[in-house]
Amino acid sequence: MQSITNSQLFQEIHQQPEIIQNLITHSQNSIKALVEEIHSREIRHIYIAARGTSDNAGRYAQYLLGAHNQMVVSLATSSLFTIYNQPPNLSDSLVLGISQSGKSPDIVSVVAEGKKQGALTAAITNNPHSDLGKAAEFILNLQAGDELSLAATKTYTAQLTTLAILSAMLDGAQQYQQDLRALPSKIERIFDDETHVKNLAERYRYMSHCVIIARGFNYASAFEFSLKMKELTYTLAIPYSSADFLHGPVALVDRGFPVFVIAPDGKMVHEAQLLIDKVRQRHAEVIMFSNQYSLLEMADQPITLPTGLPEWLSPIPAIVPAQLFAMYLAHTRDFDVDNPRGLNKVTETW
Amino acid sequence: MQSITNSQLFQEIHQQPEIIQNLITHSQNSIKALVEEIHSREIRHIYIAARGTSDNAGRYAQYLLGAHNQMVVSLATSSLFTIYNQPPNLSDSLVLGISQSGKSPDIVSVVAEGKKQGALTAAITNNPHSDLGKAAEFILNLQAGDELSLAATKTYTAQLTTLAILSAMLDGAQQYQQDLRALPSKIERIFDDETHVKNLAERYRYMSHCVIIARGFNYASAFEFSLKMKELTYTLAIPYSSADFLHGPVALVDRGFPVFVIAPDGKMVHEAQLLIDKVRQRHAEVIMFSNQYSLLEMADQPITLPTGLPEWLSPIPAIVPAQLFAMYLAHTRDFDVDNPRGLNKVTETW
Repeated sequence: MQSITNSQLFQEIHQQPEIIQNLITHSQNSIKALVEEIHSREIRHIYIAARGTSDNAGRYAQYLLGAHNQMVVSLATSSLFTIYNQPPNLSDSLVLGISQSGKSPDIVSVVAEGKKQGALTAAITNNPHSDLGKAAEFILNLQAGDELSLAATKTYTAQLTTLAILSAMLDGAQQYQQDLRALPSKIERIFDDETHVKNLAERYRYMSHCVIIARGFNYASAFEFSLKMKELTYTLAIPYSSADFLHGPVALVDRGFPVFVIAPDGKMVHEAQLLIDKVRQRHAEVIMFSNQYSLLEMADQPITLPTGLPEWLSPIPAIVPAQLFAMYLAHTRDFDVDNPRGLNKVTETW
Repeated sequence: MQSITNSQLFQEIHQQPEIIQNLITHSQNSIKALVEEIHSREIRHIYIAARGTSDNAGRYAQYLLGAHNQMVVSLATSSLFTIYNQPPNLSDSLVLGISQSGKSPDIVSVVAEGKKQGALTAAITNNPHSDLGKAAEFILNLQAGDELSLAATKTYTAQLTTLAILSAMLDGAQQYQQDLRALPSKIERIFDDETHVKNLAERYRYMSHCVIIARGFNYASAFEFSLKMKELTYTLAIPYSSADFLHGPVALVDRGFPVFVIAPDGKMVHEAQLLIDKVRQRHAEVIMFSNQYSLLEMADQPITLPTGLPEWLSPIPAIVPAQLFAMYLAHTRDFDVDNPRGLNKVTETW
């Protein structure tokens, strides 16, 4: 078996504190220019085009820019642009493309159509010279260095951090800026528990399926963890908000059914408690990612998140042990973590 | 084993042509009043609050009202209203609650907040005297009769039909009204093939998981079929757009992996062909719901949809054989189709 520490994936996961530190220090000017344009045009609607991991960053934006900036954030229906040629009217919106590579034709099409309609356009990308970068008026460069592993990790947390800085600057409150500065050191601390996550992954070697539940700011975390589990470990992982899960899918749960829950301290703690009570009555196996003692205590398997960050920033550290878990689970199954079957780094869809 | 034809579910599935005929005949006036208000306020943004099956009707609205009416349609992030108390600014939107029972507190909260902010509000519900009905200015009554089976079927197609009438009236084109009138007889014809669907379900008795793929207007169909499979048969069914599926989850597919595809004739045929080619290279089992000969021919197991309807209306007939499939699969597994484990008819979430 290849050495896991030599894999691109391992290295890219561990680069995250540094990349986030860099973004917090060096991306302020380009984000500020976009913020000024949003304010001067009095924009209240944001239309986000993204796929895969980047789409999960879009989910974070829905909650964060909704809660802190009163924006109505929609995730794009790309086929209206690329296949039906019947796009909605975006003229009063910010059209925001999010793509690591900046190369997916459907994402480029949505941004280009937005510009044609006179909308404000922007791109969050790791490749400012890509077609997406060329299509958008404003570029927020992730500056994450090349991402060589097929499963996106460092570009995801860089996308979330960029959105967090954007939200903080749109609002203008000093508190948010201060919260952001604590982020890199909190992420660094997650690696102190890496051996625990590595050992725990063994227990799930023969798990074929699971659900992953979170809500609110961390709804994105459920989707992104689920995508890593599918890409890296070929486990059928289904993401849900706790509310949606109770509207039907809870029927799936029987004895030993694995239920992963991501619930850092904040307004979702009570909701998570109710959910865990419900699935434990059905004898589910609960794996809990949290920094909240009362929640960790209810779990069969607790994974501890760092304390001392507000809930709105918690999705950034919360995904890191999930990335580690998926990586070690793939490794214990003897899968190649850098080259999952059937995937290419740039997926071109229309 | 109970007789399946005596189940509420069987009867409610078979009531659909009549309920849809009734809506087309009798819902015009209430929908017209809402349409006039949308026009007079020049509304271009619609914010939909819904859960479970009703949320899938919301997905249909995203595509249909986007493509035919240039509306930007967002699906609500309810927790911003109910848990964070930090709602987005909806003042220039139509806030539309969709709920069979009209009782889910989170849906009611979103509509009530919309009204408080001065937004136009409306409800699509089978219970106009519910809290949701009371919160909204305009009520579109599904008139579907009581839905007694826990899995929603007739209220789903009634919701889609209501949205289709709304879209047609917003646009005003006579062609759309004419298309709508063909709908009930097309759905009636699906039951001619019911024995085929019943027999086919046997083959999947021991299937533990599958993916269900569709895109565009039928993206909603993938989600709704997937929800029926989870509720009724406890199968881990994951819905995807073909584009999203290729951005990672395709890694799941190996020999015999069941891939259900819903692709009626229209602009998605080419996309479906590419997808099937890709999964067949990996020796997937393809079950195809279509009325397009070239697609049915590519499948291991074809399920034929009625011809002669335009693509924008196709999600309404397309879900009916899927409902039948889930019902017969549950029956062949000896599950109680009217009372899936762990579910209540009204799910109260906040």
